[in-house]
Formats: sequence, C-alpha cells, structure tokens
Amino acid sequence: MTLEIPEVVINRLPVYARALADLADAGESVVSSQALGDLLDVTPAQIRKDLSYFGRFGKQGRGYNVQGLLARLREILGLDRRWRVVLVGVGRLGQAIAEYGGFSPQGFEIVAVFDSDRESVGKPIGGAKIRHSDDLDAFLRTNGVDIGIVAVPALAAQQVVDRLVKAGIQAILNYAPMTPHVPHGVTVRNIDPVLAMQSMTFYIKQREPAGK
Amino acid sequence: MTLEIPEVVINRLPVYARALADLADAGESVVSSQALGDLLDVTPAQIRKDLSYFGRFGKQGRGYNVQGLLARLREILGLDRRWRVVLVGVGRLGQAIAEYGGFSPQGFEIVAVFDSDRESVGKPIGGAKIRHSDDLDAFLRTNGVDIGIVAVPALAAQQVVDRLVKAGIQAILNYAPMTPHVPHGVTVRNIDPVLAMQSMTFYIKQREPAGK
Repeated sequence: MTLEIPEVVINRLPVYARALADLADAGESVVSSQALGDLLDVTPAQIRKDLSYFGRFGKQGRGYNVQGLLARLREILGLDRRWRVVLVGVGRLGQAIAEYGGFSPQGFEIVAVFDSDRESVGKPIGGAKIRHSDDLDAFLRTNGVDIGIVAVPALAAQQVVDRLVKAGIQAILNYAPMTPHVPHGVTVRNIDPVLAMQSMTFYIKQREPAGK
Repeated sequence: MTLEIPEVVINRLPVYARALADLADAGESVVSSQALGDLLDVTPAQIRKDLSYFGRFGKQGRGYNVQGLLARLREILGLDRRWRVVLVGVGRLGQAIAEYGGFSPQGFEIVAVFDSDRESVGKPIGGAKIRHSDDLDAFLRTNGVDIGIVAVPALAAQQVVDRLVKAGIQAILNYAPMTPHVPHGVTVRNIDPVLAMQSMTFYIKQREPAGK
C-alpha cells in the first residue's frame, strides 16, 4: 500500500467507517456514494476519490456493499484489532478520559494511567490504578503499548511526549494546549477545543454585517 | 475579505496565533517563517502561503513582526473579542467542559449550561447553574449566544444541534460521537478522540513489518 495517501483522506476514513457501521446496524446492505455523502455532508465525488486510493469498491451505479466496505475500511485502519493505550496526566481532564466509556468498545484499551502527583498514586481510575510518572519508561519498555494519551499541563507536555517517543510509541493523542515536536514516523493528533472554537469565530465574523 | 480561503488554512491560523503569543511572552519581537515553521513542524512555504490570503506580512528576508502579526491574526479570527457560549449536556464529559479553566482566558465564556436531567437542574457547575434543556430555546432567544457546545449522547445530539441552529447559532462544537447535519452557513467542529485514534492506527499498521 502506498504511503502517499493524503493525511486528510486518512482522517476521513474513520468517519466513513462509523457511518457504515450505523447503516449496517440499521439493516442497510447497500449504500450509494450519494447517500453516504448526504449522511456526512460531503460530496459523493470526494467519497469515491478517497476510497479510490485503496482499490475498487462497488460498481458504477450499484452502490457499495455496506458490510464489505466496512470490513475493508476496518482492516485498512486497523479497527479489527485491540490497541493498547497509556494515559499520562490525571487532572480533571485526564480523569474524564480515563473514565470515558467510549474507547474500549472501539478497541482502545487504556492499560495504564500515570500521574506525577504522589498523593494520587494507587488510586483506582477507570479500570486501572494510577501509577507514578517515574514508572512510565519502565512500563513502556516491558509492556507493548501502541498509543500514548497526553493530558498534562502545556508546560509539561513536550517532556512527556519525548519520553513516549523515546520508548517507541508511534501515535500520540495530545490534549495539552501546545504543539508537540515529534520525529518523523510518529503521528500526533491534537484535541484542542479552544483552537476549534477559534477557527469558528472567523466564520461568525465573516457573516456579520460589515463594520460590526 | 474573500470567502474562498480554504478551511484547512483557517484551521491553522489559531495554531500560528498561539505560537506567536508564546513568542511574544518570551520577549521575541521578530520571527522568520522558517523559525515559526520549526516551532510548529510545518514548512515555511506553507506559513507564507497561508498568510498570503490575508495580505502582505513582513518583508522578504526580514521576518515577521511578532506583535504585529499576532494582532492581525487575532483580529482576523475574532480573538480580540468575548464570545458567548452555551453548553448542552452535563454528563461526565460535559462537567469536565463546564469546569475547564482554559476557555475564559481565551475569550470563550460559558454563559449557560443545560441538561435534560431534572435532578441536576439548579446545581452549580463551573461558574453557572444547570438549567433544564426545555429552557434552551427561550434562553437563546433572549440572550445573545455565539457558540453552542454539544456534549449529549450521540442519539440526542442531532436534535440539540437542530435547536441550536433554529435559534440562530452559527458555530457548534460537537463532542457527541456522530456527524451532525447543519445547513449551509453553520460551522461545526467535531471533537472526537476515538476518530483521532482510528486515524493514527492506520499509520502504526503501515510501519509494521509486512504480514503482522
């Protein structure tokens, strides 16, 4: 499989997979790119182009086989496997992440949780017990871990990212409000509601009467 | 100002603004596109191209004036104003959002919080008291609100989005794991850590030895 698939395409595939899973749950067996596009507010042309990176799906005018396309997308994205995740940082946000029920059913298992606060070490959270951050590197060395979630304050985040990367973690979900540096070959996704809102206010301003 | 600026460009501007604010805090007065790119792991060419949509900044070989560019980006994005936000849904995630300290310093004020659970109505959360969802529409009619945050379960989310849109809200930050439908002229940003992780596992798989 080629590596030159644009990242924006990869980012859309999980959205397609989720919509197909919903369609499958609703008993649908075939869906057109038009109908899938209507569900997701994207154009059918974009769906066809995105999928074309991965081969031929469906036949012209026949639509996609829902189960078949879903299975293929799950395989492409690795959604047919379990992924081992560590969480670093158990402030208010980290707690919400640790206790969020939506990860495990999707194959993402938080196998360990770390915090730098010695007071909280040993306390149960989600299905795990809080470990001290000093033990992060040793844990990563001796346990296969795929993904690191960073939920520490901005000033501490780069150091945590560096330790995750040094231990061989290739995928980092960053909740800290900063842009982490990672070497080539490490993927980062930033979850930042402030940046998301800041990109929307641009559009609100655009729609206002001039001069406001 | 033209409306044809690609959305990906708009989405990057808040990242630039945040980096410039950090540089200003650190006492830097000038930054080159190269140095800014290094900070953010993007190419200097991309920064120059993104900014070119909004006019000419800096002079060839002289770098950008940090304060000047920051002020202009803040104006473009509307970061120099206060924005009024309502939050709908006060489950565990909604609570974390309501109590998150990072919105207000950035100009986003959660002015009201709503939930459908009558038991929780009247309880204090963040700086507000929980109101019943039945009062959402009346509140929006009589209070200027710019942005709606949706933190209800997936099955309830579209209905909440519809009510926000009907009341004139043009910007929605959606935490529900679904793709909401909105009419043209309404901007949505989805915050979904599962989708973010699903887009990263693709890359982990790519880097594995074949056949694993």
